Amino acid sequence: MALRFLKPVRGRARKAGTPPGTLPEGLPEAGEVSIRLIAYSHEKLAERELPPEGIRGTRPQEGVLWLDIIGHDRRTLAACGEAFGLHPLLLEDIATPGQRPKLEDYGDFLFLVLSMLKVGQEDEVEEEQVSFVLGPSWLISVQEREGDVFEPVRERIRAGKGRIRGEGADYLLYSLVDAVVDGYFLVLESLGEGLEGLEEEVLGAPVPETAAGIHRLKRELLFVRKGVWPLRETIGGLLRLESPLISNDTRPFLRDVYDHTIQVIDTVETLRDMVTGLLDIYLTSVSNRMNEVMKVLTVIATLFMPLTFIAGIYGMNFQYMPELSWRWGYFGVLGLMALLALGMLVYFRRKRWL
Amino acid sequence: MALRFLKPVRGRARKAGTPPGTLPEGLPEAGEVSIRLIAYSHEKLAERELPPEGIRGTRPQEGVLWLDIIGHDRRTLAACGEAFGLHPLLLEDIATPGQRPKLEDYGDFLFLVLSMLKVGQEDEVEEEQVSFVLGPSWLISVQEREGDVFEPVRERIRAGKGRIRGEGADYLLYSLVDAVVDGYFLVLESLGEGLEGLEEEVLGAPVPETAAGIHRLKRELLFVRKGVWPLRETIGGLLRLESPLISNDTRPFLRDVYDHTIQVIDTVETLRDMVTGLLDIYLTSVSNRMNEVMKVLTVIATLFMPLTFIAGIYGMNFQYMPELSWRWGYFGVLGLMALLALGMLVYFRRKRWL
Amino acid sequence: MALRFLKPVRGRARKAGTPPGTLPEGLPEAGEVSIRLIAYSHEKLAERELPPEGIRGTRPQEGVLWLDIIGHDRRTLAACGEAFGLHPLLLEDIATPGQRPKLEDYGDFLFLVLSMLKVGQEDEVEEEQVSFVLGPSWLISVQEREGDVFEPVRERIRAGKGRIRGEGADYLLYSLVDAVVDGYFLVLESLGEGLEGLEEEVLGAPVPETAAGIHRLKRELLFVRKGVWPLRETIGGLLRLESPLISNDTRPFLRDVYDHTIQVIDTVETLRDMVTGLLDIYLTSVSNRMNEVMKVLTVIATLFMPLTFIAGIYGMNFQYMPELSWRWGYFGVLGLMALLALGMLVYFRRKRWL
Amino acid sequence: MALRFLKPVRGRARKAGTPPGTLPEGLPEAGEVSIRLIAYSHEKLAERELPPEGIRGTRPQEGVLWLDIIGHDRRTLAACGEAFGLHPLLLEDIATPGQRPKLEDYGDFLFLVLSMLKVGQEDEVEEEQVSFVLGPSWLISVQEREGDVFEPVRERIRAGKGRIRGEGADYLLYSLVDAVVDGYFLVLESLGEGLEGLEEEVLGAPVPETAAGIHRLKRELLFVRKGVWPLRETIGGLLRLESPLISNDTRPFLRDVYDHTIQVIDTVETLRDMVTGLLDIYLTSVSNRMNEVMKVLTVIATLFMPLTFIAGIYGMNFQYMPELSWRWGYFGVLGLMALLALGMLVYFRRKRWL
Amino acid sequence: MALRFLKPVRGRARKAGTPPGTLPEGLPEAGEVSIRLIAYSHEKLAERELPPEGIRGTRPQEGVLWLDIIGHDRRTLAACGEAFGLHPLLLEDIATPGQRPKLEDYGDFLFLVLSMLKVGQEDEVEEEQVSFVLGPSWLISVQEREGDVFEPVRERIRAGKGRIRGEGADYLLYSLVDAVVDGYFLVLESLGEGLEGLEEEVLGAPVPETAAGIHRLKRELLFVRKGVWPLRETIGGLLRLESPLISNDTRPFLRDVYDHTIQVIDTVETLRDMVTGLLDIYLTSVSNRMNEVMKVLTVIATLFMPLTFIAGIYGMNFQYMPELSWRWGYFGVLGLMALLALGMLVYFRRKRWL
Repeated sequence: MALRFLKPVRGRARKAGTPPGTLPEGLPEAGEVSIRLIAYSHEKLAERELPPEGIRGTRPQEGVLWLDIIGHDRRTLAACGEAFGLHPLLLEDIATPGQRPKLEDYGDFLFLVLSMLKVGQEDEVEEEQVSFVLGPSWLISVQEREGDVFEPVRERIRAGKGRIRGEGADYLLYSLVDAVVDGYFLVLESLGEGLEGLEEEVLGAPVPETAAGIHRLKRELLFVRKGVWPLRETIGGLLRLESPLISNDTRPFLRDVYDHTIQVIDTVETLRDMVTGLLDIYLTSVSNRMNEVMKVLTVIATLFMPLTFIAGIYGMNFQYMPELSWRWGYFGVLGLMALLALGMLVYFRRKRWL
Repeated sequence: MALRFLKPVRGRARKAGTPPGTLPEGLPEAGEVSIRLIAYSHEKLAERELPPEGIRGTRPQEGVLWLDIIGHDRRTLAACGEAFGLHPLLLEDIATPGQRPKLEDYGDFLFLVLSMLKVGQEDEVEEEQVSFVLGPSWLISVQEREGDVFEPVRERIRAGKGRIRGEGADYLLYSLVDAVVDGYFLVLESLGEGLEGLEEEVLGAPVPETAAGIHRLKRELLFVRKGVWPLRETIGGLLRLESPLISNDTRPFLRDVYDHTIQVIDTVETLRDMVTGLLDIYLTSVSNRMNEVMKVLTVIATLFMPLTFIAGIYGMNFQYMPELSWRWGYFGVLGLMALLALGMLVYFRRKRWL
Repeated sequence: MALRFLKPVRGRARKAGTPPGTLPEGLPEAGEVSIRLIAYSHEKLAERELPPEGIRGTRPQEGVLWLDIIGHDRRTLAACGEAFGLHPLLLEDIATPGQRPKLEDYGDFLFLVLSMLKVGQEDEVEEEQVSFVLGPSWLISVQEREGDVFEPVRERIRAGKGRIRGEGADYLLYSLVDAVVDGYFLVLESLGEGLEGLEEEVLGAPVPETAAGIHRLKRELLFVRKGVWPLRETIGGLLRLESPLISNDTRPFLRDVYDHTIQVIDTVETLRDMVTGLLDIYLTSVSNRMNEVMKVLTVIATLFMPLTFIAGIYGMNFQYMPELSWRWGYFGVLGLMALLALGMLVYFRRKRWL
Repeated sequence: MALRFLKPVRGRARKAGTPPGTLPEGLPEAGEVSIRLIAYSHEKLAERELPPEGIRGTRPQEGVLWLDIIGHDRRTLAACGEAFGLHPLLLEDIATPGQRPKLEDYGDFLFLVLSMLKVGQEDEVEEEQVSFVLGPSWLISVQEREGDVFEPVRERIRAGKGRIRGEGADYLLYSLVDAVVDGYFLVLESLGEGLEGLEEEVLGAPVPETAAGIHRLKRELLFVRKGVWPLRETIGGLLRLESPLISNDTRPFLRDVYDHTIQVIDTVETLRDMVTGLLDIYLTSVSNRMNEVMKVLTVIATLFMPLTFIAGIYGMNFQYMPELSWRWGYFGVLGLMALLALGMLVYFRRKRWL
Repeated sequence: MALRFLKPVRGRARKAGTPPGTLPEGLPEAGEVSIRLIAYSHEKLAERELPPEGIRGTRPQEGVLWLDIIGHDRRTLAACGEAFGLHPLLLEDIATPGQRPKLEDYGDFLFLVLSMLKVGQEDEVEEEQVSFVLGPSWLISVQEREGDVFEPVRERIRAGKGRIRGEGADYLLYSLVDAVVDGYFLVLESLGEGLEGLEEEVLGAPVPETAAGIHRLKRELLFVRKGVWPLRETIGGLLRLESPLISNDTRPFLRDVYDHTIQVIDTVETLRDMVTGLLDIYLTSVSNRMNEVMKVLTVIATLFMPLTFIAGIYGMNFQYMPELSWRWGYFGVLGLMALLALGMLVYFRRKRWL
């Protein structure tokens, strides 16, 4: 079973020894990349698909320019780097999945890497990296794969609903980050349902598969937790950042999204505590059932061993065994056995074994 | 079994993708809401029920104005928002149960969210959100459900007892927060009694249900703990806040309520430690009883297996078995068996198995 | 079994809804209170019992005035409050046992609450609250019950030994705090002896009662620990406090008593680690003994089951069983059994089961 | 089995009592040491092997001078000390393997000690110490053993690829540190693969060797972890250092390598959590299998003990046993036994033991 | 078994109620104390034994004066107090073994208490307190017992080797502290060897004594750890101290010894983690062996119980049992038994129980 959190380690290990700013080896020169340009202000809205070479020359006149890129290849990254003057290390980070969430202030622009979580088809948590570069009136966002988590934001821009059309690029960044964080709640909901199911099993009729399920949930939580703590740091950093790129009007919204990440962390930690407790209860119930089995065994053995022994005695072939010829010998022994069995049953009841 | 702490996660998950400041979908336009206006100063007192539209135009002339709202719908929130100039994010927070306790300083007013705990009818801990907005001489409090935790404060205002009538809105806020924190002690008392009962069971005659009880108590404590740490932060923030809205006369009282939250946390942590220790003791006693059962089994088997074997030997049908025809053969074998059994009993006693 | 640490929670729960500064309900108007006035300077010493109303009018001319109160009732507290201008919250704290140790600076005077530990008659740790109010040249100390922990300090004042008669009220406070902290060492000594006894049992011949003893010690330590951490904070706060009430000459002594509280904490934590380790060892030894029992059972069963089976074969009543009529059949079978038993014993020895 | 992390403790213990700055006893006067001098600027490149005495007189005119030393003996260290004015404690640290990673700022130069990890031939993690001394335009690097981790950097210098030839000695230091940190990812990849293998075993068919494997992996992780936390501190210190030796152009690169060390730590901690969880699952599966074995035993014993007892009864030799002479006695008893067995099987099925 | 770490608690408990600055009761007026005076500068060296009264009047003219005291009695302490103006609390600390390591800055001099560890004769870790008082050009060191840990320093002074003769009293203090810290490495080496031995036992053939050994090692580590954390604080405090008594030339050496204490702590923590892991592995192996024993028991019982039952059937004495008179009945039954046994063996093999 491949461990997902090892993927970035493997990527990094494969690049050992290359100079800094090197794009990953497997990155194609020209891959399947979708580049969408959305330029808007309070009054105007323009949206169109761009070829990679179209990126050069997209500097906006007024309003906000959003370069919404899905997938990465060398051509596109190079074009972005040239058009917006991006550092090679930054481009390397965009192209290397599995970055730790982080915020870097380059003065003229901010660089923000987040990890986006999704519940996959086999209920496995999947991770995807999203990078943002925020300039004075432009924003570049780069996702790994096609997904519709940003679609509601695009819809809001198109519809001109809410404040988004009247605000700057920082508000757009907030809206996208908020969409990413909202995705965490969907993941937590799914994990929480898994936990509810497991708890019912454990308190009802636990089977060995229950333990495997607990282990699996624990792993998923470990995976989510690994991503969620740096997320908090990163968004907290964004909140505290003193940069002209973040306007004061946007700060309450960032505080709101920051509160959500704290809620995510609280929930992850509580889920972890619950899962740990669940394993304890599972083990306790295994112990209890073992105890019960042992009691049955002991009761049976204690009941029948002495009886069988008595029967064995009178099965001996000695020539001189006076009891054998007694008239009521047989029934007497049967009675004795019944009494013995009765006595033991009373004893077991007293010991609460029955 | 539904996990209560997942409720806010679910609420949040259902709102994924909506713009900020959106009130939750299920919120009715006009629901069952009770709005009570209490205006008082040292000399005067006015108390009356208000319709939602009555909120606009409630700015006080002198003394303190308390808008005491129970339940929420869109109409009431909108009226509050307009009348007091509240940020849409703030209204969203009020209307979305399961917020993490927090304090936000909007300059002109303070926004405070707390979670109130109560012991439900099946001894389950229930949570309810209370929001406060504190202005210079007014206070809005919003509860989710009808409950009488604020009634003693209302009584004190009506009766004019204590300092409350002579103090400002900040003292009223303190009084309400104090009432909320006092509710935690009632919850802790109930949990503590549960722990005492479980401890008696564990040290007396533990049954498998005891383990389930320990698990249940652990979950309740996890739930309480999740609410209580941010409570401390929040009230600590209120205490340290440099805002003209909090007068210096009120600070000693806030310090007092802060001390109480620390006491709550201490008690929760101690209860958690106790519960963990209790599970250990339970498992130890399961092990001990298993040991005892095994000893009985071993003693019985060790006693009767050799005896049965001896009986089996003399039950064999060989034609030439000299012992069978001995005069005292039978009694000799019986004696041998008795000696063997005696020897084993002595051995077991030495091993402390009996 | 009542849990001691729940007492203050219960007290607090019973007061839920009362206004701040309310004295506890059960507090009698006039109870059994001993009030002792000790006024001293380098040259003079006056000591006498006071009635509650005598407190008003005790402002000292020169030297130090110590109001040494044991027990509390409404009358005495009211008199103190009036005579020294104490805040109602402070009086409430004095009268409500189970306060968390704390230090409050009221400018004109300091308020210090500590908890005093004692080993009770059934080796249970008992807690008592001591409150101190320190003014420029006076000190009020309030204990819950008669106890002789302050007697050595009184003796030193009477005898004029040491520096105490020449120093101010802050040095008197230090002396009393030091006496309280010294009491912790007596408690730790008693708990340490309990631990030594349990360790001997565990490493020697553990019985199920040992586990109960470990659990009991763990609870006591939890109780002590709950009191000792805020003690450190409080005394550390006293040490760092910039107040004219604490002279520079007294600071080295406070540092000394602070070192002692750290030593107390270190010891409590080490004891806790030891107790946890002890439980592990106990469980290990339970496992080991279970293993031993199982081995005995297995050896016996493995030895006698095959032998009994062989005997059973020759106990069958078939008409045509050639071995039965052999001359040496019986002795041959006995020999075979002996060989089999021997072989098994060798096998068990190899497996180290014997 | 020798514990690797004890090596430096042993080295230190052997030196107890010697004056500071003493080189370790076993260090040869003249050992097998390779000294390579690489001097480069944007235009020029000179590379040659040096004898130890050649070190004196290597002060560079322009560009960067890299003294790349592998192995250590007294002669070489003394030459370095004289030529570059190094403190004796610094030379002692270079010559004493097992130093904790650290950064020391001597004003004129920086001293940096790192530990380099490698996967050995038996999949054991091996540690090697690398020391760096960074001056204004020169860098000394000292490794313990021949290894090719720095070869890619040398290649980049020779080829003139990337920015390395145009930057200063601080960029060279960064490149080497980056190469060291990249080595950690290779180690983590190997450990991660070990974990994947163990997880498959545990969830499939765990054998006692699996537990030993888990223990071994845990030890390796403990070893890696011990080295990795001070690494983070050290590189973080380098990043925050205000020294003219580190130019502002190099800082983004140091931040990049710092991010990598955090990723290493995150991965180590996650691996540790995984391994701990794995041991829990292993123990759970041991318990489950024990339970299964016990059930089989109990079922067999419960089934056959009563049957054997019945057979025993009719094997008794009483003269008056009426059933024996019944025509259908034998078949009746057989039928009774069959019924009994059937009843028990139904009972076991109900209890889910079958 | 007496717990060593309780010794200081007992000492403190016995002094409860005495005024501060009281020397311990058992301290003799004149005991066996060795006082050695070593006065040295770059050129001169004087060393002689002093009687206690000789201490008064030892103020140095030039160079460094080292008062090297072993053992303590009232006479000597009083003489030191008078001659160097030491605070009574300081003298009490010197005379009361079991102080927590600490650093106190009295302005004119520094007071440093350390605890020195040694491996005793029964491989038990022993603790001894060393106190240092550092003045401008003098140093007092007080040990509890004769020991040769300072002998190498004396030798270096006598021989005039290294920098020691040319440096001040602060360098002498460093040299002695370094000698104390070096002693910790000897202790760690011994504990590490114990761990290696235990690990071999656990992975080889663990016996119940192994568990006792693990427990013992854990206790020793707890004891070392309790001393080592405050040691770090203390030496760290010395390093950061801004006092004219510590010259800048000595600081790099203090940093070196501080690095060593961190290495000690790292090693202690790693050893603790190893020991905890070892206990887990021990318990796992106990479980595994129990499992193995149970399997043997179950295999034997499952094999022979049915066979014995069949033999029992044909041992019944019914008059009408057709099989008994069959010609091949006996051999047929034997064959049936053999087949049954074979079938079971195949079944066990499939279940991997054999």
